[in-house]
Amino acid sequence: MSEIIVQKFGGTSVGSDERINAVANIIKKATKENKVIVVVSAMSGETNRLIKLAKSFSDNPNRREFDALISTGEKVSASLLAMALEANGVKAKSFSASQISMKTTNHHSKARIVDVDGKKILSTLNEGIVPIITGFQGITESGDVTTLGRGGSDTTAVAIAAQVDATRCDIYTDVDGVYTTDPRVVPEAKKLDSITMEEMLEMAGQGAKVVQIRAVEFANKYKVPVRVLSSFEEGEGTLISLKEGNMENALISGIAFKKDQTKFTLHSVADTPGIAHKILGPVNDKDISVDVIVQNVSVNGKTDFTFTVDSEEEEKVKSILENEKSGLDYADLLIDANIAKVSVVGAGMRSHAGIASKAFEALSSEGINIQVISTSEIKLTLVIEEKYLELAVRSLHKAFNLEK
Amino acid sequence: MSEIIVQKFGGTSVGSDERINAVANIIKKATKENKVIVVVSAMSGETNRLIKLAKSFSDNPNRREFDALISTGEKVSASLLAMALEANGVKAKSFSASQISMKTTNHHSKARIVDVDGKKILSTLNEGIVPIITGFQGITESGDVTTLGRGGSDTTAVAIAAQVDATRCDIYTDVDGVYTTDPRVVPEAKKLDSITMEEMLEMAGQGAKVVQIRAVEFANKYKVPVRVLSSFEEGEGTLISLKEGNMENALISGIAFKKDQTKFTLHSVADTPGIAHKILGPVNDKDISVDVIVQNVSVNGKTDFTFTVDSEEEEKVKSILENEKSGLDYADLLIDANIAKVSVVGAGMRSHAGIASKAFEALSSEGINIQVISTSEIKLTLVIEEKYLELAVRSLHKAFNLEK
Repeated sequence: MSEIIVQKFGGTSVGSDERINAVANIIKKATKENKVIVVVSAMSGETNRLIKLAKSFSDNPNRREFDALISTGEKVSASLLAMALEANGVKAKSFSASQISMKTTNHHSKARIVDVDGKKILSTLNEGIVPIITGFQGITESGDVTTLGRGGSDTTAVAIAAQVDATRCDIYTDVDGVYTTDPRVVPEAKKLDSITMEEMLEMAGQGAKVVQIRAVEFANKYKVPVRVLSSFEEGEGTLISLKEGNMENALISGIAFKKDQTKFTLHSVADTPGIAHKILGPVNDKDISVDVIVQNVSVNGKTDFTFTVDSEEEEKVKSILENEKSGLDYADLLIDANIAKVSVVGAGMRSHAGIASKAFEALSSEGINIQVISTSEIKLTLVIEEKYLELAVRSLHKAFNLEK
Repeated sequence: MSEIIVQKFGGTSVGSDERINAVANIIKKATKENKVIVVVSAMSGETNRLIKLAKSFSDNPNRREFDALISTGEKVSASLLAMALEANGVKAKSFSASQISMKTTNHHSKARIVDVDGKKILSTLNEGIVPIITGFQGITESGDVTTLGRGGSDTTAVAIAAQVDATRCDIYTDVDGVYTTDPRVVPEAKKLDSITMEEMLEMAGQGAKVVQIRAVEFANKYKVPVRVLSSFEEGEGTLISLKEGNMENALISGIAFKKDQTKFTLHSVADTPGIAHKILGPVNDKDISVDVIVQNVSVNGKTDFTFTVDSEEEEKVKSILENEKSGLDYADLLIDANIAKVSVVGAGMRSHAGIASKAFEALSSEGINIQVISTSEIKLTLVIEEKYLELAVRSLHKAFNLEK
C-alpha cells in the first residue's frame, strides 16, 4: 500500500451509470495494491450539452461564465463516481478545483495550471479515502473558475501526479494503447508496450489523439511516467516512459499522419534577415498554429518559403498574407489544400543513418511524389498529395517492419 | 440608483432559454432604478435529473456527494442567466456559494445558513455589475458543499438581503402573489396586496406553498420585507410586510387548508404529568412533524389525546404507538386517515371576538361536523371529514367576505 498512482478516466469511460460502475471496479481493484487518486472528465455528451445551452444566449458567451458553466460537468461525474465507489464498499470523496486549490492562469477556456495544493489530497489518501478530483478545471487567484481546454483532464491528472510524487499516472480512455499507426489505415498496426516521451510528443502532435499533448509535455517536465490504457478491456496499455533509449532495438516506433492541411508557399521572396518572422509573425499574432516550415537555400537573393496550417485556418492566413504582400515582396502566393502530412517517428533515428532514404524509397516505389521534407532529431515529416496518404502510411509501416 | 433589492427566481422562472431571457428582461428593467442582486434556483427538472442519476448508484447516496452533485444545477442556471444579461447589455457575474463564502452548518441536504460574506457582493454591485448568486447551497467551514433543502433558494435570497441591508427581497415564482385561499378551490379567491409575516407563516405552514416557510422566518428575524410575485406576468404581487396591524380593516386574510392528514387519538389515557411528552417524544425522535395537538380536560383521571400527521407517516406513527402501548396505557388507539384541516388565518383575530363562532356557524350551516378544534393567536384550525374540505373552504371564504 505504499505507492501512489493517479488514475484518470475520460468522458467515454464515465459515459453512463454502467460505465461509472465499471470504472469503480477498476479503482477498487487498484486500491488493493496502491494508494489511488482519481481524476475524471465529464460524462461524454455532457460538455456538449452545456455548450449548446450557452450558445442559445450568445455565439460568443462571456468566457468567465462559460467556464463556470461547463466546469459543472466534471463535478457531476466526480460525485457520481464517489457514490458508485461507496456503493462498492470503497470510501471516496469528490473534490472540485477550488476544494484542492487547483490554481491556474486566468486565461478562461485555455488556462494553464500554476499550482495545486497536494496536502488535502494526501491527507484524504492517508485516511484510506480515494480522492476523486474534477479534471479540466481550475480557479484563478481571485477564485473564478477556469477550464484548461478540451482534453485538459489529462493535464490535471499529470499535474496532480507530479505534485504528490506519484509512481505513475494511468490515463484510461477508449483505446487500449498507442499504436505504430492508426489501425483503421493499417490493419497490421501493432500496440506499443512502451514509447518514449519524445516519441509520444511527436506522435501526438501529428494527430495520434490518445493523450493530450500538453499532458505529455507536463509529464516530461516533471518526470511522471504515464500509461495509456483502456477502461473497456483489460490490458497493460502503453507506457510512455521516462527512460530514453529503452527502444534501442526499435529504430522507428510509429507512423503518424494528418489530413486537412493547407500548404502556403511564398514564391521568390527576398531572402533578407528576419524574413521568416516577417512572414509568420502576423500569422502567430492571430493564434494560428503553423506546422511544417521549410525554407530552401536562396538563389540570387530570392527564396521560396513554405509552411502548413490546419485547413480551417486557410482563409485567415490567405488574407493576412495578401494584406502583407507589399511588405513581404513575394512574386507569387501558392496555396494547396490538397495535401497531407505523414511522419516517421523514432528515437532510434538519432543514432541510425538511413532512415530517411528508406522512407523515400518506400514512397518512391509506390510512385508517391514528396513535395516537402522536414526533419527533426526523431521525426521525418513528408508532405504529399492527400489522395496518397493511406497508401503512404501503409508502405512506410511495412518498410520499417512495424507489424512485427 | 441608491436602493439595493434582491430578486430571486425559482426553477420554473428559469426553466428554459426563453424563460431565462424573460428573467433577464425583468432584471434589466429593475437595474434602471435599483442596484439589483439576483439569486437563482436550478432550471426546473434539472435537480430531479441529477437525483435520478444519483439513485442509479444507491437508494441512499452519500450525503456529501449528493449535495456536491445537485448543487451543480444552480451553477448552470446562474452562469446562463449571466450570459443572457450580458447578451442584453447588462454586466453580470455568477457566484457560487464558495465564491461568496455562504457558510452553513454541515447538515448535508438540510443545512442552515450561518454567515455570508457581503463584501464581494457589494463590491461587484458598486462596479455596476449584477451579482447572480446560486441559491439553495452553501459550504461548510471545511469547504464541503451543502444544500439547504428543497425551496432553500428563498432562504438564500433573504439571507443575502439581510446581509447587505437590502430594501426588499422579491421572490419571483409562477404565481402572482398570495391569495385568500387556493383559487382552484374558490374561484373568487382574491390576491392580497399585503400580508403580515405572521399571517404568512401561518398560511405557508398550512400548505400555501408560495414561499418557503424558513425564508419567511428568516425575513421575520432580520426584518427584511419580502414580496412574492410572478415572473410570467406583470404585477405588484403580495408584500409580506413587517408592519403589524396594517391589515386593521381585514379581520381575516385567508383560508388555508391541508389534505392527506391522519388523525391519531389515544382514547382514555392516564392524564399524568408529562403524558404529552411521553406520547409525542418517540414520534419526534423519528423526525416526524406533528401538527394539530389537542388534549381535552380529563374525566376520572383519564383523557383523550389527539394529534395529526401527514398521512405518509401513518405507518411509522402507528407502530411507534403500538410499541409504546404498555408504557402509555391507553384503552384504544383510533386512527382516521379520512380527515383534512382547514384554517382561518388573520392578525385581526387578536383584537376581534366572534371569529370562531362565525366559522363554526358557516360550517354548521353546510352540515359539516367539526371533529377537532385548535386555536392560536391568529389562527383557528378545524379538523373535518376530508370529503367536505372544498365545501368548507368555500363557505369560510364567503363567511368572511374574502372575495371583496
